[in-house]
Amino acid sequence: MHVILDFTVVPVGTGVSLSRYIAEVERVLRDTGLGFEMHANGTNLEGEWDAVMAAIRTCHERLHAMGVPRIHTDIKLGTRSDREQRMADKVPSVRQKLAEGGDPLKRG
Amino acid sequence: MHVILDFTVVPVGTGVSLSRYIAEVERVLRDTGLGFEMHANGTNLEGEWDAVMAAIRTCHERLHAMGVPRIHTDIKLGTRSDREQRMADKVPSVRQKLAEGGDPLKRG
Amino acid sequence: MHVILDFTVVPVGTGVSLSRYIAEVERVLRDTGLGFEMHANGTNLEGEWDAVMAAIRTCHERLHAMGVPRIHTDIKLGTRSDREQRMADKVPSVRQKLAEGGDPLKRG
Amino acid sequence: MHVILDFTVVPVGTGVSLSRYIAEVERVLRDTGLGFEMHANGTNLEGEWDAVMAAIRTCHERLHAMGVPRIHTDIKLGTRSDREQRMADKVPSVRQKLAEGGDPLKRG
Repeated sequence: MHVILDFTVVPVGTGVSLSRYIAEVERVLRDTGLGFEMHANGTNLEGEWDAVMAAIRTCHERLHAMGVPRIHTDIKLGTRSDREQRMADKVPSVRQKLAEGGDPLKRG
Repeated sequence: MHVILDFTVVPVGTGVSLSRYIAEVERVLRDTGLGFEMHANGTNLEGEWDAVMAAIRTCHERLHAMGVPRIHTDIKLGTRSDREQRMADKVPSVRQKLAEGGDPLKRG
Repeated sequence: MHVILDFTVVPVGTGVSLSRYIAEVERVLRDTGLGFEMHANGTNLEGEWDAVMAAIRTCHERLHAMGVPRIHTDIKLGTRSDREQRMADKVPSVRQKLAEGGDPLKRG
Repeated sequence: MHVILDFTVVPVGTGVSLSRYIAEVERVLRDTGLGFEMHANGTNLEGEWDAVMAAIRTCHERLHAMGVPRIHTDIKLGTRSDREQRMADKVPSVRQKLAEGGDPLKRG
């Protein structure tokens, strides 16, 4: 089952600067071969369910190995059975609706 | 790696009443043998990382099999390397702090 | 607009033990008069949109005043225009579906 | 209090295609004058607490007015009292750590 998700890793109990841990998350993801893209509040990731969940588990293992005692992570994910969708399709689909314009309260 | 999490499954494109799908989520969890507890906005779940992630995947598979075309799920999870913690410890730990009382701005 | 939500406050950069901060969140909520219930991974809260968002803002202000330099918070919320729903209705609605039983793949 | 957040609006009970609703979310945000950026799984947004929460409330009001009966929204947000941070600083801060490289298990 293909999944598209966004996740945010929050290291707790290790000081206020988190960027080196987020950099490590990106290193882990590079090694997986999965599609991903970091943004200001998290990282978008897609692939088969088990592969993406294993990737996030590896992020936790790696950060604990770096000395982070406690990690909070948010994941929001989507799966579809009606059609295939890829992460790269999502923003262009909204852009197209914006380009079509019109009064949203009157559209079908 | 032990994980304590909260998740919310949101069936999309299948009407406005979702309770029978949430009931199915609970049936899936019962079959796993994992510790879980439903609350007003989601379900708390704990166990080994791979087991809990497989349980949530099974929820998606089951709901798609029931005809739900699209599913959005939120997961917020925590892992710790400093000590063992179980889900059942978390609320009592806060209750104890509340019972201790005092002025929070003055506590160490 | 009535909103039902679940939120989790994660204090960052202030050590690994968070329970006294979560206790303070509960004290803030008690003072608001809003309906709320703490669970193992967060707190359920309901009320008018502006009132609940002001309550969560007050939690942030209070924790920063206690010395927490950085706070990460997750909120998952729902609003409905089709009918009134209260937080207390949600679990019983699922319990009823569970009691009705039957084969979920065959139900309408 | 300045807040940096990511949010995802999930219209429920209105069919499987959501892009026209997400386009409307973007129209609402344009009118607010707040800083925001859409990505594959949500929208990053920043500003004063009350202004960003009012913007998300307006998104809910507008989508309900378009006929969406039920809306689920996730928000993950951060505030800091230690220093000012802007959304535009976050990815470059991680990029810098990646450029510095080295063995993460050995870094201070």
